[in-house]
Amino acid sequence: MVSEKSLAWGRSDNVIRVLTAYGLARKAEIGADKVFDFSIGNPSVPAPPAVDAAFARLLQGDSVELHAYTAAPGLMSFRKAIAADLNRRYDAGAEADLVYVTCGASAGLSICAHALMNPGDKAVAFAPFFPEYQVFAERAGGELISVPPAAGLQPDLDALVQRLDEKVTMVIINTPNNPSGVILSAESLSRLSNILRGAEEKYGHPIYLISDEPYRELVYDGTPVPCPLHFYDDTILCYSFSKSLSLPGERVGYLAVGSRAADKGDVFAAICGAARSLGYVNAPSLMQRVIESCLDQTADISVYKENRDLLYNGLKELGFDCVYPDGAFYLFVKSPEPDAMAFSERAKKHELLLVPSDAFGVGGYVRLAYCVSTDMIRRSLPAFAALAKEYGL
Amino acid sequence: MVSEKSLAWGRSDNVIRVLTAYGLARKAEIGADKVFDFSIGNPSVPAPPAVDAAFARLLQGDSVELHAYTAAPGLMSFRKAIAADLNRRYDAGAEADLVYVTCGASAGLSICAHALMNPGDKAVAFAPFFPEYQVFAERAGGELISVPPAAGLQPDLDALVQRLDEKVTMVIINTPNNPSGVILSAESLSRLSNILRGAEEKYGHPIYLISDEPYRELVYDGTPVPCPLHFYDDTILCYSFSKSLSLPGERVGYLAVGSRAADKGDVFAAICGAARSLGYVNAPSLMQRVIESCLDQTADISVYKENRDLLYNGLKELGFDCVYPDGAFYLFVKSPEPDAMAFSERAKKHELLLVPSDAFGVGGYVRLAYCVSTDMIRRSLPAFAALAKEYGL
Repeated sequence: MVSEKSLAWGRSDNVIRVLTAYGLARKAEIGADKVFDFSIGNPSVPAPPAVDAAFARLLQGDSVELHAYTAAPGLMSFRKAIAADLNRRYDAGAEADLVYVTCGASAGLSICAHALMNPGDKAVAFAPFFPEYQVFAERAGGELISVPPAAGLQPDLDALVQRLDEKVTMVIINTPNNPSGVILSAESLSRLSNILRGAEEKYGHPIYLISDEPYRELVYDGTPVPCPLHFYDDTILCYSFSKSLSLPGERVGYLAVGSRAADKGDVFAAICGAARSLGYVNAPSLMQRVIESCLDQTADISVYKENRDLLYNGLKELGFDCVYPDGAFYLFVKSPEPDAMAFSERAKKHELLLVPSDAFGVGGYVRLAYCVSTDMIRRSLPAFAALAKEYGL
Repeated sequence: MVSEKSLAWGRSDNVIRVLTAYGLARKAEIGADKVFDFSIGNPSVPAPPAVDAAFARLLQGDSVELHAYTAAPGLMSFRKAIAADLNRRYDAGAEADLVYVTCGASAGLSICAHALMNPGDKAVAFAPFFPEYQVFAERAGGELISVPPAAGLQPDLDALVQRLDEKVTMVIINTPNNPSGVILSAESLSRLSNILRGAEEKYGHPIYLISDEPYRELVYDGTPVPCPLHFYDDTILCYSFSKSLSLPGERVGYLAVGSRAADKGDVFAAICGAARSLGYVNAPSLMQRVIESCLDQTADISVYKENRDLLYNGLKELGFDCVYPDGAFYLFVKSPEPDAMAFSERAKKHELLLVPSDAFGVGGYVRLAYCVSTDMIRRSLPAFAALAKEYGL
């Protein structure tokens, strides 16, 4: 008699968590230094010192005020600071009244699905994508439509055109991408925007572009991450401080509705109503205040760059076919056999934990999270060499 | 094209928030000391010193570990400590594996609705009740059935019997009650349990009792709050640390599924699936650790007792008909005219902000939140005297 959908989602194995759990058990068995765990995207560098300083300063203040409920969309001072930060960094035209502080990007995406979809509506995502997109769309009574990748893992926009219909109300992009590290190019974004504007006109209603961008600041070669608001008015930015400030467990992020979006008032009200109906009262109060004073900071991402270069170059030399990651902290490697699940299993024999890409809506790759110690990467290379040899690379 | 339900919930006026906003504007206009704001249930006493000590100690630790993702149901050490605390206080038979740490009680209730209801199912609540119960049930595709109160604001259990049918999968109680402060008596709980067991047998499926009990420790005369797990096996406790530790903005609470509940494995899995699908990743990481070390603490509630006595006795003396509150920090006062909205409007003329009970599913009362300064209560009594005089009390 429990909810059938919830039971299925509760029972279904999340391949990443299963692999992480296997890794923990295996480390206990043979020693932590013998297992090369690339399964999970948990930041490996500490939060910047400004975060610690903010805690120390704020905790001197009035306890009642510090831990009180905030307004549901967040502290107004924080919302103003977020809008100012977006405008400073990206000339985004952001307005504090259109910023809604969320409990991280997952909450933001779930809220968007519930705000923008009526039952039977469709959301579109470009493979490879974060597996929970599908769960959020289905929970909201809708459906997720997957569009396959084209060359360089940019979205196949011809395939998108084939899949658009009157039921599509939102399109999700994720840049830099988890699991591939690829940045959506200005060219792709420009063409995507033209297609969506055409579809809006054809079907007579807005189609919202949700830009899921928690890795926005994790870019290593100075490659620009184009801001979708410069291309398309009906955009909602979905952000999390989990990666940029190394605070994944604290669950703070935001939605920012574009200030030129059609029906922006209705969209913001629907976001408020969706968040309320899902049981989100406000994002954690103390953390809102801490992050407000650290908006211009990022954790020290130089370690991730070092890791990326070491891993990418190391695997290339061994003959693996890797997608060059401009950003995020993931390396997407082509499986030397068509079945990535089988490849992941064979890698396990060498104590290498690599997530098969099937979970991300595309076959034939594995994802390596390189937010690990540089030393572990260095020590893992002989295992990769043995694995390459097995495949005759 | 936005979600019709979400838009309606986002646009609908929450009477409490509207009154609070009016109060803020009015204070700016005539001075904070001239407005007697009893509208909102935000704790007015600081978190206990143990909370500050835990912050200071924990923030010395490793930043990466401290702010990392936790397992979705919470840190295992915290879940174990919660189960032990429930067993120490209430001999509850709680098990850590059946404890799910939530982002507060609202999240817990929303998760329960999504875990226990299939579309078309019904939840039952006893008026007066927290208005969001209805929103959570409807968001999950179900319906909320309201049962009116009987004498002393205990539930009318004869009326419950009339309303039970095969579609009812959950029944919500709230003790001590918001807005009345009434504790559900052992007698009521015993009869309720017998009725539900009979209905389970008749309809051939479990009916879960959700005990929403964030005010459990806020009791002033040593009156016991009976633990529903002693009466009924198919119980889920829904708790929040917002009130007992004065941390409402930090959003930490839990669900504890009864260890003798039917299908407890399925129920817990459905809770995991519901939380996942709503976008809850984990409750805030640092706060889980802080609260883990403060589970045996409560904020200093002696102020609330002093406030209750002053307000209850003061209003009784003036001729108002008040429900004696055993717990929580709310006083429920009978409106001297049938229309509580009209009474609330007249009270505003005396700068008294009282929430009409219609929002809580019952007419004819107003709710006074006495988690305010004792001084404000003292200064408000002449205004209440003038109001009483207007009604010829």
